[in-house]
Amino acid sequence: MDSKLIGIFDSGVGGLTVYKEIKKVNPNLNFIYLGDTKHFPYGSKTKENIIELSRQNIDFLISKKVDEIVIACGTATSQALETLKKEYKILINGIIEPTAEYIKEKEYNKVGIMATRGTIKSKAFENEIKKKSPDIEVQNKACPLLAPMAEEGWTNNEVAELTIKEYIKEFKDIQAIVLGCTHYPLFENIIKKYMPEVDVINTGKIVAENMKKRLKVDSKTDKIKEDKFYLTDTESNFINVAKLILNKEIVIEEIKEV
Amino acid sequence: MDSKLIGIFDSGVGGLTVYKEIKKVNPNLNFIYLGDTKHFPYGSKTKENIIELSRQNIDFLISKKVDEIVIACGTATSQALETLKKEYKILINGIIEPTAEYIKEKEYNKVGIMATRGTIKSKAFENEIKKKSPDIEVQNKACPLLAPMAEEGWTNNEVAELTIKEYIKEFKDIQAIVLGCTHYPLFENIIKKYMPEVDVINTGKIVAENMKKRLKVDSKTDKIKEDKFYLTDTESNFINVAKLILNKEIVIEEIKEV
Repeated sequence: MDSKLIGIFDSGVGGLTVYKEIKKVNPNLNFIYLGDTKHFPYGSKTKENIIELSRQNIDFLISKKVDEIVIACGTATSQALETLKKEYKILINGIIEPTAEYIKEKEYNKVGIMATRGTIKSKAFENEIKKKSPDIEVQNKACPLLAPMAEEGWTNNEVAELTIKEYIKEFKDIQAIVLGCTHYPLFENIIKKYMPEVDVINTGKIVAENMKKRLKVDSKTDKIKEDKFYLTDTESNFINVAKLILNKEIVIEEIKEV
Repeated sequence: MDSKLIGIFDSGVGGLTVYKEIKKVNPNLNFIYLGDTKHFPYGSKTKENIIELSRQNIDFLISKKVDEIVIACGTATSQALETLKKEYKILINGIIEPTAEYIKEKEYNKVGIMATRGTIKSKAFENEIKKKSPDIEVQNKACPLLAPMAEEGWTNNEVAELTIKEYIKEFKDIQAIVLGCTHYPLFENIIKKYMPEVDVINTGKIVAENMKKRLKVDSKTDKIKEDKFYLTDTESNFINVAKLILNKEIVIEEIKEV
């Protein structure tokens, strides 16, 4: 029989950092990736708007017969996951709850969060982390330029470095920093350079490990197909940044109707 | 009687640079400004999407009984103005045609254009400029980070400076540079610093002068009211950047239904 098919969506190319981690740890799964590039960035949109767009994305992935869904987007997880879980029967994985669980296990008492304006304002990470670790101190920083900078492919130049320095300068005595937007692992090396003592949390890695524990794949009998990548708008810089993340070229299919 | 009422719209706060110039030159006009912050940025959206959003903006302004409309957005002018002019009876001013006319009058033979990815891809500036000045050389540069940087209020720091330097470095022997997005006048000083010999064209100033020539306002009898500012989403950084542009606080009203 075919391997389980995982549907992953994001507002753009950032979710590929999650796809990459899940695939690395679970090489026997099949994947469909949907980048809603027509509506990028989600970070500056209203909650209602993000819920509506997320529904469209999930409906598309369900039409492709996926077995479960990963919202590989901090903004969509923070704004829409709770509502969507009530509306759909299919399993929908977010990136926030597993991250909060990881922080609890590590027994951190001061953590920083870098995310889009919408995600920070929603307090989704902060609330979930405090629910599991009541005595923790959470320091929030909205970083609205990082996702556009990643989409531009500027992840390793002086502009990126100065921008990161500006965004992290207010963090005080933190043991870990959550990359609350899936574009941000592209800046992981710069962040580690300036905060070498801090655990930089790539949420994709946590989701990948959780999925491995939960899904038992029989690598001998299950069939692996070619992963598929869909975009709602191909005008973007997606292919170039995808290459930066995955170190290979991917074939894109455009969805006109979404 | 009341002064003429001008409706101005943009995807965000950038159009305030156009509002500012028009008001400076035409102090006896009344204004309604609409920032479609819910859908910012337009720069990465499809043509169809931008036309649809522009229709919503125009319908809103018409419902407020404006006498004419200014699209204070390079992206919306380039993608939607031609279509909208056929659909509406009301006068709709864009920023591209008057800019091309100005370049023709100045008899430039090499100009650069800085704009969003969508505007550059549309070739709207290039085509209009070449229609009026057939022998001109046009050098295009998409600058997708500048509008988000302006919305963040980073218009006078090292990041802005390095970003501008990166974006202008390929221009060769140009006499003028068109700021093809209404956010970009916020970076005018930096651009002038690195290209002191070049005429930096602020499209808002051109639109303002054209309006002055066309509209005869009787400053003794016409009544001036308080200008109004509407946003489709107040979650943005609009108020802070508005202060940067206008040097004063403005009162914002949120539109829920758009």
